[in-house]
This record gives sequence, C-alpha cells and structure tokens, in this order.
Amino acid sequence: MFDDLDFEGYTCPVPIRPDDTVVLGHGSGGSLSHDLLRRLFLPELGKAAPRALDDSAVVVIGGERYALTTDSHVVSPLFFPGGDIGRLAICGTVNDLAMIGAKPIALTCGFVIEEGLPFEILQRVAASMKEAADEAGIYIAAGDTKVVQKGGADKLFINTSGIGKIADGVDISGANAKEGDVIILSGTIGDHGIAVLSAREDLGFETTLESDVAPLNRLVEAMLSVGEVHVLRDPTRGGLATTLVEISEQSNVTIEIEEERLPVKPAVKAACEMLGFDPLFIANEGKLAAFVKESDADKILNAMKKTKYGKDAAVIGRVIGSGKSQVRLKTAIGGTRLVDMLPGEMLPRIC
Amino acid sequence: MFDDLDFEGYTCPVPIRPDDTVVLGHGSGGSLSHDLLRRLFLPELGKAAPRALDDSAVVVIGGERYALTTDSHVVSPLFFPGGDIGRLAICGTVNDLAMIGAKPIALTCGFVIEEGLPFEILQRVAASMKEAADEAGIYIAAGDTKVVQKGGADKLFINTSGIGKIADGVDISGANAKEGDVIILSGTIGDHGIAVLSAREDLGFETTLESDVAPLNRLVEAMLSVGEVHVLRDPTRGGLATTLVEISEQSNVTIEIEEERLPVKPAVKAACEMLGFDPLFIANEGKLAAFVKESDADKILNAMKKTKYGKDAAVIGRVIGSGKSQVRLKTAIGGTRLVDMLPGEMLPRIC
Repeated sequence: MFDDLDFEGYTCPVPIRPDDTVVLGHGSGGSLSHDLLRRLFLPELGKAAPRALDDSAVVVIGGERYALTTDSHVVSPLFFPGGDIGRLAICGTVNDLAMIGAKPIALTCGFVIEEGLPFEILQRVAASMKEAADEAGIYIAAGDTKVVQKGGADKLFINTSGIGKIADGVDISGANAKEGDVIILSGTIGDHGIAVLSAREDLGFETTLESDVAPLNRLVEAMLSVGEVHVLRDPTRGGLATTLVEISEQSNVTIEIEEERLPVKPAVKAACEMLGFDPLFIANEGKLAAFVKESDADKILNAMKKTKYGKDAAVIGRVIGSGKSQVRLKTAIGGTRLVDMLPGEMLPRIC
Repeated sequence: MFDDLDFEGYTCPVPIRPDDTVVLGHGSGGSLSHDLLRRLFLPELGKAAPRALDDSAVVVIGGERYALTTDSHVVSPLFFPGGDIGRLAICGTVNDLAMIGAKPIALTCGFVIEEGLPFEILQRVAASMKEAADEAGIYIAAGDTKVVQKGGADKLFINTSGIGKIADGVDISGANAKEGDVIILSGTIGDHGIAVLSAREDLGFETTLESDVAPLNRLVEAMLSVGEVHVLRDPTRGGLATTLVEISEQSNVTIEIEEERLPVKPAVKAACEMLGFDPLFIANEGKLAAFVKESDADKILNAMKKTKYGKDAAVIGRVIGSGKSQVRLKTAIGGTRLVDMLPGEMLPRIC
C-alpha cells in the first residue's frame, strides 16, 4: 500500500493519540489506509526510504532502473471461484511491477502457516503459484516458511515480493496523467471482490462469477509496444474509484468517467444491488486502468483487445482538466457526481 | 528457509498422506523444515525456480549478479531484551544478503496487522526498523500493510525482502567449503534465543541477557577486504549445529569443531542448563560462521575483531576431510560426538 505514496518530506499531520488502535478499515486500501501511512509509517520510515511511488518503487542500480514491490496476501477463504491465495500472490506482485511498465524478473515468497494446516492445502496453493508464475513468465527465486501455533494466524498468509526491469524510455507513474489523456479500462470491474464474497459460507449467496485474478504483464507489453502510456494502475483494494482518486491527486488533474461505459457483469451488478455495494469500490485482481496519449488511444485499445486479459477493454473517460484533483462520474441519467475513495473497509481480507 | 536448498531437479521423495498437517516443528529451521520443503514446496515450485542456494538466491540481471532474499518474522513477544520484531526484520534480511557476500541495496517490508493493535506499538516498531536500516546503510523502498480481524493473526507479522549486489570475484556459498578451511565464529552463541525466551511471561525466568540482533553487512565487508572467504552463514533458527550440518551436506565435507572454543555467555549457559537446552541449537541473529582459506584465517580474524559485531570472534574448528558430510564435536573432556540438525521445534516463534 505505501508504495502508492511519496515517502519524501512527509511530516506527521495528526499526532497519534495513545488510545488509537488499528481497525479493519486500515487495511482497506482506502482513505483509512492512507491515514495509517501518513500518520504512522511515513514519518518513521520516510527518512529511510528516499522515494517510493506508485505500485512499485523505482530503484536505480548500476545506471538502470528496476522496480521493487511487496504484497502480503491474507485472502479468506484461501480458495474461491476462479482462483486461490497462491494465484493471487503471484499475480498481485507481477501486476504491481507491470503497473510501472517494468518487465517482471523474479519473485520471492514468504509463507506464514498456522499449525494444523493440511499439507494437501499447501500443495494445491504451491501448484497454483507455479502455474501463475509460468503463465507470467517469472520465476520464484527464494522463499521462506514460518509456522505459528494454532490460533496464531488464520491458516495461511503469503508475502510475495518482486523485481522487474524498466526499459529505457518507459516513464509510467500515477503522477503522469495529462489533460486530454484517454482513460481505458481493460475489462469488467468487481469480479474479484464479488467472487471472494460468494465463497464465504456465512454470506449465503451464490454466483457463477469467477475472480478475474490474472497476470497483466503481457497485456502491458502489448500496450507499450504500440503507443504512449502515461499511467497504469490495477484497481485492487478500494476498487476503480479509489484508484482514480489516487491518480487525480498524484497528477493534480480532473478526471471524468462515464457510468454507462463501465463494463460490469450482470452477476456483479446483481450481487451489488443485493448487498448494497457499488462496483466502483469493489476489488479487481486482473484489470488495469490506463491513461494514454489521446492520439495513441485507438492503437492501444486495439492492441489490448487482441490479448487474453484485455479483450473487453473500453474507453471509460478522460482527463478534462488540470490544477484541481477531482474525479467526476457522469451518470447514466445525465447527472454528475463526485467520486471519493473508499473511506473504511467494505470487504475485509479480499486479497 | 528454502533459500537454503537447491531447487533444481527435486522430486518428491515421500508421497504426502492425506492426513498430514503442518506442525510447529515445520517452522524450526531444522530437519522437519527441510522435510516440508523437500516433500512439498520444491516438487511444486522447483520448476518455477531455476536455482536457489544459500541464504539468498543469486539472480543474474544484465550480466551482473544480484542476491534476492525474503524472510517473514513472527517473533513472540514483539519486544524482547536487546531488540524487537522491527530490528529483527531488517537485520534478518540484511544478513541473508550479506551471507552470500552481497552488498545490501534496498528492502521491501510487508506488514500483517491484527485488528486492535495499538498505533503506539506500530510506531515503536517502525522507528526501530528505521534505526536498523540506517545502521546497515540500506533503505526501505516499498511497503504494504494488510489488516486481519481480531484473532486472525497474533498482533504483527513482518515480511522483509531484499536485494543486494554481489561484487565481481566474490564467490560465497554453503557449497564452497574446502578441506583445510578454518572455521571462524563471530561471537557468542545462543544470546537471541535465550533473550526472547526470557521475555515470555509464562516461562518465569529472568536474565540480563540481550539479543544479539544486528546487521552484519559491515563485518562481512571487513572480512572480504582482507582474505578469501568460502562460506558465510548466520546461525539463526536451528542454531550453529543446524548451520554446520547444512554446510557439511552442501559441500560434502567433514567438519570438526571444538566445544571448548565455542564462546557462550554464562547467562546463556545457565539458562540452557536450567531448561535442558544445548546452546548449539539456539538461534542467533547477529552472528556468523565463516569458512575461510587457511592461510588467510589470521588476517580475517583480526579484521573481524576490529568491528563492532566481530570483537569476540574466535576460531572454532576446521574442515578435516571431504567426500563425507559429517559434523564432529570434540568435547571438553576429550570425547567426540556427531552433531545433527535440530529435528523438530525447540523454541517456536523465535524470529
């Protein structure tokens, strides 16, 4: 999460009260998460970290730019329609690297296992990790396992960290959105969050929906080969709304998207209506939003549509102004509403 | 842990029975841990991972060698005499990089936080991480936070992953021990394990002992600048005994160490006698064992003694043969016993 923020020059905006504690909303990816970082981690770790932007940090080694990223995965349940914690762990990190235009090189994985977990579960997760790594063309270079006593963790957590190389000339960042940029979404939103939710027994609803969890590095490669891409971001925790608000703040631009153009599957729409959720805030794990140069938009869109994970790509809006960070949604009936980031927690442990 | 093993060409030696589950001993760093890897992770992930050796994996990028490593930290309690989970997380990863002779460049950190954890705890941990990172001369490039519901994790887990650069000419690996090599230990053993143990309220014993948790990269730099080092390993989980057995297996050599030469603090000795432990199996977090070229041993030992974390360095034994992997301990009363790795779990959640 705090790879989304600039570590430089932070000061603690609000003093921490002695009775403050972490709540689930601090892990939502929304404004409470940002608050935790601004108030706590950045003032302390900021001086150790020279600069961390976007989904991955950029580290210059020997004159070349590399992307570094880390993600811990605590999804519950471990298996859900369309994926599992293993596929999620590989794809999450591959995508964070891809979102700054880096070509993934290698991953590490760290397992925290609750005592009593059946070997068979671990084996299925490991097999799924291998399959996802093979699909992305990345390998797992190193790993670590820790076991905690029963009740000390919920079954299994996986951290994946990764390194990727940023090619010369590639300059992709949440801070690079420009007036006139066309915003392309690679496919339907909300699939992952609703699929995980449907797998929770206590919620008692069923759907044929599958998570979209997928590695997006090849989609990004296809896009970069045909046109100028300014911003890439995968709308995970906090959903598309939070992602767009982050970009509007990083680039200080006004974004306008059209509700009618947002691709949402009927099953996601139905589940959201039933549960009172908005698909704009639901997590995705195999989608990206791209801000591209206007004159290259058609070429990029066509290139996306030819790939496995971009076939439903659509233009959803554009950057209509600069100097003011705002996200505007034109509704289907012709109104306009302002979009804010997810404040607290809607769906805990979705990734 | 499975950075200690070669991923290549593994097959599953024993089929997994459906009723097999993970026990605490699988996280010990000893033979049960190795078993978990050989039977489960390596058969699945082995094909995705071309080669992972030693405390870090070596990845070649643009013709240069880099070290990659990952470690999850689940120590309980979070604060103990001489350190805390934050210092441990930074030092553990810095040391894994240093143990293959890499100069640490950057770290990532992933936090899994239990709902309800006071902010004040996180703040102290983050401050401690920053202090350790500054001491090691490394920076934290990216981070991630996840929050799980109360009871879903035990307070706080931290994963740290790191990248370092291996200089030309440096070739350090557990597989490089040679007959005649002199074995140097950088200081006293068992301090970390006993210090953490003393902080557990339920054990009801007290000691003035402090954990040795420290970044060893500058000690390693001092060593490499004066002589030829073949093997470096920090004896963490499983202690010095497990480390030496691993090296004897990787290099297929016979190691002999002398009990009388092993530096052990009186407080550690006393605690081990009381609890029935052997300091040889207790975890350290600021010590290293080095296998060095015989003719360079004096120079290297002297260089170590001039550094903060090597001032108690001592020669503890040597490689007395090759073609047979064995670790022999000459006892104080003149006998010899074979040393094996820690079988299961002695002290859970020590790191």
